[in-house]
Amino acid sequence: MKQQTVISFADRLFQAIEQKKTPCIVGLDPRFSNIPSQIREAARAEYGPTIEGIARALFLFNQAIIDLVAPLVPAVKPQIAFYEMYGPAGMKAYLDTVRYARSRGLLVIADVKRNDIGSTVAAYSQAYLGTVPGWDNSKYTLFDADAVTVNPYLGSDGIKPFLDDCATYGKGIFILVKTSNPSSSEFQNLLVHDTPLYIHVARKCRDWGDALIGKCGFSAVGAVVGATYPDEAVRVRQELPQAFLLVPGFGAQGGTAQDILPFFRDGRGALINNSRGIIHAYTQAPYKDTYGEQYFEKAVVEALELMITQVRTVLAQT
Amino acid sequence: MKQQTVISFADRLFQAIEQKKTPCIVGLDPRFSNIPSQIREAARAEYGPTIEGIARALFLFNQAIIDLVAPLVPAVKPQIAFYEMYGPAGMKAYLDTVRYARSRGLLVIADVKRNDIGSTVAAYSQAYLGTVPGWDNSKYTLFDADAVTVNPYLGSDGIKPFLDDCATYGKGIFILVKTSNPSSSEFQNLLVHDTPLYIHVARKCRDWGDALIGKCGFSAVGAVVGATYPDEAVRVRQELPQAFLLVPGFGAQGGTAQDILPFFRDGRGALINNSRGIIHAYTQAPYKDTYGEQYFEKAVVEALELMITQVRTVLAQT
Repeated sequence: MKQQTVISFADRLFQAIEQKKTPCIVGLDPRFSNIPSQIREAARAEYGPTIEGIARALFLFNQAIIDLVAPLVPAVKPQIAFYEMYGPAGMKAYLDTVRYARSRGLLVIADVKRNDIGSTVAAYSQAYLGTVPGWDNSKYTLFDADAVTVNPYLGSDGIKPFLDDCATYGKGIFILVKTSNPSSSEFQNLLVHDTPLYIHVARKCRDWGDALIGKCGFSAVGAVVGATYPDEAVRVRQELPQAFLLVPGFGAQGGTAQDILPFFRDGRGALINNSRGIIHAYTQAPYKDTYGEQYFEKAVVEALELMITQVRTVLAQT
Repeated sequence: MKQQTVISFADRLFQAIEQKKTPCIVGLDPRFSNIPSQIREAARAEYGPTIEGIARALFLFNQAIIDLVAPLVPAVKPQIAFYEMYGPAGMKAYLDTVRYARSRGLLVIADVKRNDIGSTVAAYSQAYLGTVPGWDNSKYTLFDADAVTVNPYLGSDGIKPFLDDCATYGKGIFILVKTSNPSSSEFQNLLVHDTPLYIHVARKCRDWGDALIGKCGFSAVGAVVGATYPDEAVRVRQELPQAFLLVPGFGAQGGTAQDILPFFRDGRGALINNSRGIIHAYTQAPYKDTYGEQYFEKAVVEALELMITQVRTVLAQT
């Protein structure tokens, strides 16, 4: 069998952004208590008030969200903690979510923030990006996400197995450089020879990503930089002109459209993520009073279209 | 219902070490291809050549290992990547392993190295240490490990939810300070005002652990320091006199019994882990030729007893 030509993740992502005309993506971080009751009751009718029922509700909810957002955005970013917290059943909901989103033409960034020593990271990489060894020298494709998020604290050993699978399978990684949370400066902004740690991490990302630059000029090795830190984004952008920046923290965490410009390079090369502000929009002002849970889909679409418009307006200034 | 008094994880661990008279623990990191064929075939007979069959083999293997090591060591440390790589079925094997080990009186350190922003870490902490929210305000106990390993790169936000559950449920965490892998110095040894980053992390661990010190004088907040870095261990021990040090890297990664002394405080307060060197001992010299896979149990027990003796001999020097 002739091997299929592997297309770089960077090029697939670049093309998806061009096609959807937006760098906005949706975080699939469902909270069971915030899932509309009609979906929870449908899941309960099938599985009873069990963990399997909760997992089913997560997936049914995601299915509805994915159907709504697939025409509008290039990618989704499911945060695994909200599935993994429900054990094996939750992991099945995660797997089903990744597969359903890909079947609807979305790129999937598995937000797993995994990290370990090399031999262990190889197992994670096999599971999320590549193939795992099975019976009688067979291979299984498990999660088959398009990209994963990765924590850099262990250095190159913990990154290399991912890089190999990025090359082999046309996948990508986003390395935590400057995270969106309030305490991210405690270690990430410590000064090492007058340069903050996150810049040292960014420089390593450049080394790791150099061999994985696609035709679009961006690399399959990206960096996570929180929307809440636009000043740091300026510096990371300088260090990493070729990286896609994955930008969480928009919306619920406080990042605004005005903050996002420095994350881009000539209006390209960043992904702006919003999770709660889109998927659970119906629980929040101004949608809570207008729609309520019966019409949660309308809240999702309106919140997402508003975000897309805001980001487009800001990018038009470039 | 009167609430049960919560016993500190530190005290439970301290007591378990005293009772078993060794700080040696066993890492449950099973590689499917290294599981003796009689166990793989038993699993295949039940589930066929499927992912469920692989997961079953992992669990059957662990059950055999746990039965062998439960009388000898205070704790086991299952590395989740080797289960998670097989998806939902693998996570069930992980869950079953944690529960079986606890049922045999072992403490379980879930080696998950999780990390994220606070609201997400809360979900991990609920799953691994506490309880997760279910139907109609009910709660489920999921993994219910005794402790987890945690990556510090995101700072306090990513630690606090774990600390709260440590206090509520009598659980513990081990924070990555200086990891055992070759590239761990790339970031962890960068000098911040003449002090390496891992020491800054250790100092934060002290702050995080101060409120969780048990009657034994050690804290429920421990630190991971690789057996491969004894010089760094001296410095971490100075900064963290009250922390249990979890010490991976013994055996396959190159750490030896002679290296372990600086990890202890007066012969107490460290856990020395060996994974591959114990559970897959039959695949390695000198056990490979002596026993082979039919007698893998003998290799496990001999390798573990040798390690326990070596560590005891070194500790007798204190």
